[in-house]
Amino acid sequence: VTTVRLAVIPGDGIGPEVVGEALKVLDAVAADAGLAFERTGFSLGAGRYLETGDVLTDDDLEAIKAHDAILLGAVGGVPGDPRLAGANIERGLLLKLRFELDHYVNLRPSVLHPGVASPLASPGDVDFVVVREGTEGPYVGNGGAIRVGTPAEVANEVSVNTAYGVERVVRYAFAAASARPRKRLTLVHKTNVLVFAGSLWKRTVDAVAAEYPDVAVDYLHVDAATIFLVTDPARFDVIVTDNLFGDILTDLAGAISGGIGLAASGNINPDGRFPSMFEPVHGSAPDIAGKGIADPTAAILSVALLLDHLGHGAAADRVRDAVAADVAERGDANRSTTEIGDAIAARLGATVGAH
Amino acid sequence: VTTVRLAVIPGDGIGPEVVGEALKVLDAVAADAGLAFERTGFSLGAGRYLETGDVLTDDDLEAIKAHDAILLGAVGGVPGDPRLAGANIERGLLLKLRFELDHYVNLRPSVLHPGVASPLASPGDVDFVVVREGTEGPYVGNGGAIRVGTPAEVANEVSVNTAYGVERVVRYAFAAASARPRKRLTLVHKTNVLVFAGSLWKRTVDAVAAEYPDVAVDYLHVDAATIFLVTDPARFDVIVTDNLFGDILTDLAGAISGGIGLAASGNINPDGRFPSMFEPVHGSAPDIAGKGIADPTAAILSVALLLDHLGHGAAADRVRDAVAADVAERGDANRSTTEIGDAIAARLGATVGAH
Ligand SMILES: CC(C)[C@H](C(=O)O)[C@@H](O)C(=O)O
Ligand SMILES: CC(C)[C@H](C(=O)O)[C@@H](O)C(=O)O
Repeated sequence: VTTVRLAVIPGDGIGPEVVGEALKVLDAVAADAGLAFERTGFSLGAGRYLETGDVLTDDDLEAIKAHDAILLGAVGGVPGDPRLAGANIERGLLLKLRFELDHYVNLRPSVLHPGVASPLASPGDVDFVVVREGTEGPYVGNGGAIRVGTPAEVANEVSVNTAYGVERVVRYAFAAASARPRKRLTLVHKTNVLVFAGSLWKRTVDAVAAEYPDVAVDYLHVDAATIFLVTDPARFDVIVTDNLFGDILTDLAGAISGGIGLAASGNINPDGRFPSMFEPVHGSAPDIAGKGIADPTAAILSVALLLDHLGHGAAADRVRDAVAADVAERGDANRSTTEIGDAIAARLGATVGAH
Repeated sequence: VTTVRLAVIPGDGIGPEVVGEALKVLDAVAADAGLAFERTGFSLGAGRYLETGDVLTDDDLEAIKAHDAILLGAVGGVPGDPRLAGANIERGLLLKLRFELDHYVNLRPSVLHPGVASPLASPGDVDFVVVREGTEGPYVGNGGAIRVGTPAEVANEVSVNTAYGVERVVRYAFAAASARPRKRLTLVHKTNVLVFAGSLWKRTVDAVAAEYPDVAVDYLHVDAATIFLVTDPARFDVIVTDNLFGDILTDLAGAISGGIGLAASGNINPDGRFPSMFEPVHGSAPDIAGKGIADPTAAILSVALLLDHLGHGAAADRVRDAVAADVAERGDANRSTTEIGDAIAARLGATVGAH
């Protein structure tokens, strides 16, 4: 049995509810996979900030680093809460973790499972993965403003892109494409407007492509990519793109493949120097928090990505198969968060009690 | 009769084909509206660059400025054409015109006409307009790179946002929202990540909102906006957003409301200091150029926006009504570019001959 030190950040809103179900599913497959999870809970998010004034202390960060992986629910308070005006939970916690832990791959698969409704009339066979860069681009926080609040205010945001940063994520994307049956990689950027960053991305993809003759490479401007995501999403296999375009495309991708209630993600440090972090793409949804009605599927599918990352692909596939079987029979049934978690865990052999 | 000096830039690929039909429709309504168009053609685009090496000379620009308005088809050569490697037609021509002519409002309506197929299963009543900022943001061209081609390359892109630039486009958007029946304005940005630019946009919208108590104001992150565009596009009325987010959202908006073959746009200088420019959102589509199969509807609807801008809303509505009547009966019929233009012009009373 391998022991895995798992940092658990339930977070705010529906975060704790969905994380509870994700852990239930993890427990259901762990033993068979020869894994034992040693969990440490971290109370972080808007709730913690309101209690203590801290978003993420150095001690928190060091403690998290001592783990093998992280499972995160969702963080963020009620939009517009005046008590949160002084804090940016997203930048100070979520993005801080991604940057400090060098999560340069933000992996976001989109699969439209049979039985799941899509807003698209004829979506076709949707099964692709977005490899979103996680540590550069417009997310670096290198903006600034002068004369704030005056008619002469100027507010700048800088997108920083390095050969170092682009090459490593592009290499990861090619390896991913090469391991998939269709072996197709699409670079998405806006090379005709963002000419410096675009040129770096384009040259990097061209260079790495030479090492992967088996992978068919394609390029789309980000605006055109959104069109294809609604008119022909089945064309995509692996998309590699920058941090901001990846943010936009993956919400859209989630929407067309059954909603972000089903969208999982991994913030991965492939070098293994830092723990990788797995989280649903959705937010903390304070409006439905505490009601037991949040869909835990995205959190559960994030556990599958965690198992993949730990090298337990077979266990990950078991989780995905159980989810696929569950969603196929879901229909319009209004099940609670716990009922969904229980149903999926039961398919994995767990004995789940009454609640 | 008012004489309007119209600069016509047919451009590349399908540009000349669709512009021909747009002018036909303009002719069909001009006299009744008391307008006479004095046209000057400008040969600009990839074709001109390949012939002369010029993208847009100072003389071209001065000559264009001497006009009251501009109708543009589409510019851009065959992607990957090595002879175009040294030129960026998009930046050097299209964006240059938008910036030099201070087109700070890029107006892009999205209407799903009855009878038009949408990729969405149940799109609802889609009728909104995106007011995209046109002269700032990541489009300013203030990027740069060092150590290009080495493993130490750094490529930056700077998004520049000013109170001056944001306020004027936000004011335009509020005026537009206030004049529409639903009076609803949605700011789209990414304030949680792009905190400096986002804060400027947010504060500006809040300040101008105080002058428009009749307009209901809403905010969405750009990623969430893409979700709503496919799950509930009917919720939108006026969207105001920055240059890059507007680029992305309007292609998606075009896709869900019948395809970018129907998407019109106006690059507007509301001050009237410079001529405004009207163009379909689509590109030059070199793959179908010269075949007479391009859909001229977007170019024709751009003529309606031109008429709006000239203060001839009734004539603009006649064009839109003729288009709506045409698309309602279109079905799957495979009509040529000319047939579509003729049919719409005929509805407007034009006598159209055989071709
Ligand atoms: C909350 C926000 C900072 C975050 C992002 O923009 O990356 C979210 O939208 C996501 O996609 O994980
Ligand atoms: C061609 C390109 C520069 C342009 C843009 O990005 O604005 C186009 O996509 C558009 O939307 O008009």
